[in-house]
Amino acid sequence: MKFIISWLLLVGLFSKEGEPKQTTVVILLYPGVELLDFAGPLEVFSLMENTKVVTVAAKPGSLAIMKKTLTITPDYPLETCPQPDILVVPGASPDHIRTVVDDAAVINWIRQTTPKRALTMSVCTGAYVLAKAGLFTGKTVTTHWASTQMLQQMNADARVMEHTRFVEDGKLVTTAGVSAGIDGALRVVSRLKGPAAARSIAETIEYDKWDPNSGLIVGQQPPTKGIRSGKKQAVAKPVSPIKPAGPGTALATDGVDPVCGMTVQKGTAVTMMFGATRYGFCSEICRTRFKREPAKYVSR
Amino acid sequence: MKFIISWLLLVGLFSKEGEPKQTTVVILLYPGVELLDFAGPLEVFSLMENTKVVTVAAKPGSLAIMKKTLTITPDYPLETCPQPDILVVPGASPDHIRTVVDDAAVINWIRQTTPKRALTMSVCTGAYVLAKAGLFTGKTVTTHWASTQMLQQMNADARVMEHTRFVEDGKLVTTAGVSAGIDGALRVVSRLKGPAAARSIAETIEYDKWDPNSGLIVGQQPPTKGIRSGKKQAVAKPVSPIKPAGPGTALATDGVDPVCGMTVQKGTAVTMMFGATRYGFCSEICRTRFKREPAKYVSR
Repeated sequence: MKFIISWLLLVGLFSKEGEPKQTTVVILLYPGVELLDFAGPLEVFSLMENTKVVTVAAKPGSLAIMKKTLTITPDYPLETCPQPDILVVPGASPDHIRTVVDDAAVINWIRQTTPKRALTMSVCTGAYVLAKAGLFTGKTVTTHWASTQMLQQMNADARVMEHTRFVEDGKLVTTAGVSAGIDGALRVVSRLKGPAAARSIAETIEYDKWDPNSGLIVGQQPPTKGIRSGKKQAVAKPVSPIKPAGPGTALATDGVDPVCGMTVQKGTAVTMMFGATRYGFCSEICRTRFKREPAKYVSR
Repeated sequence: MKFIISWLLLVGLFSKEGEPKQTTVVILLYPGVELLDFAGPLEVFSLMENTKVVTVAAKPGSLAIMKKTLTITPDYPLETCPQPDILVVPGASPDHIRTVVDDAAVINWIRQTTPKRALTMSVCTGAYVLAKAGLFTGKTVTTHWASTQMLQQMNADARVMEHTRFVEDGKLVTTAGVSAGIDGALRVVSRLKGPAAARSIAETIEYDKWDPNSGLIVGQQPPTKGIRSGKKQAVAKPVSPIKPAGPGTALATDGVDPVCGMTVQKGTAVTMMFGATRYGFCSEICRTRFKREPAKYVSR
């Protein structure tokens, strides 16, 4: 309890008079953002006491998401968005997240609002955006299981973990894919308002298999119990470095990973033959998945 | 496999030529609908093969949800909505769900489209809407843990279960609260496309603690392993009937349950004294919760 209060004072979530000020949670939205990536945290934070949740996007107007199944209208464009105490960056499929990573206005806004932020959180491939904004240098982080090797490749100075629901490293919380945003947000509630508050929210949303120990808290909670990966329980560990294909087994040209849809470079992709074609992958993870069910991915 | 194919033929999800036709999943939206209630199923069904997911609302135009944090625009009003193969009715807090239950146009539309539907699913208090439409007669169903006794009280001819993530009874799938919509939708995928397809979607959304046996399938899967209720694992069982307060301990007037916010009638509410006030509850579940932390609810 003492630790939590010191921490709150440190990050300014108490006003000078000692009264808790309202926490502003800002969720970044963009065309193609994955619904459950942000719905989990939005749901959890909307149940956190003394909290205002708002949504922001690069520009005013509506956004089509989930293959145009849903139209959403964010509250603010970047220019008028209130300073976030907590920023949540949800992920998306590779083509959509790339657009955000390449949006200088979004990246600059994230950088500019960082010093006054208590906490920054990414869900799934939202990690790419925070990496681009320079928040991952020297940090331990995670992302969707299919993206850990790619994230490591893009950020040699970060320690990318696999088999963990979330990683908390100081003011940075990163989570595994899609539904893991719920766990990341519950961890933030636990840190800001205490474990009982987080448990009460987990009960309200009937997240009955919630395990506060399924994440890695740097400096506090090692090792984690790990998460279920496929059929077996796996312990959090740094992702294995990618071993690109050597001469004779490299891709002839840059291509697209048939599993995750990411662009892969001929120089760095791991590859394998299927039929008469050589396929390139962003990671060993995607290659393994392809090996298991090639027909599924070739027919896409 | 044989069973699945027979069942698909039965419900018309294969066209007469034997080619699988596209499955249309329609998600009902309304002002105040709980985000995660529909985000889970929308996410899961958007990953189901050969499936089109659309959203419908009583009227055209945008809806404010999550205390106005998010504005969403459904695809169709009732009049022009395509016939659903699968209808998903998400829940909301008691005040919002009551508005839908009382909306004759919505209830009539659900009734009219029922005969041609392969499957109907509710999440959380969305069960109230299906109950009102008459779909629960003689059926085994579930809802959010705080609403099971109320649902039983409203539907003497249904068997309301507690401690189960979902219940499948023929063409009806009902789920526990909020996040349990994910499990209900994965069950539907498993039934329509096979367990491997459901497992693949669970992997994609990193729902790593997914347990296909956490629900009750009437006539097929008894008993379930049950779900974690508070700290202990509980097995699915019919909810205990409510025992209203007797003379001398009844409410003086109709009131509001301080825990769940539902309207409670003086004739049927269970009650307890706290300080000088008698409080009324929709269920023993809410009374127990109040007993544990009365200060939390009185101060609301």
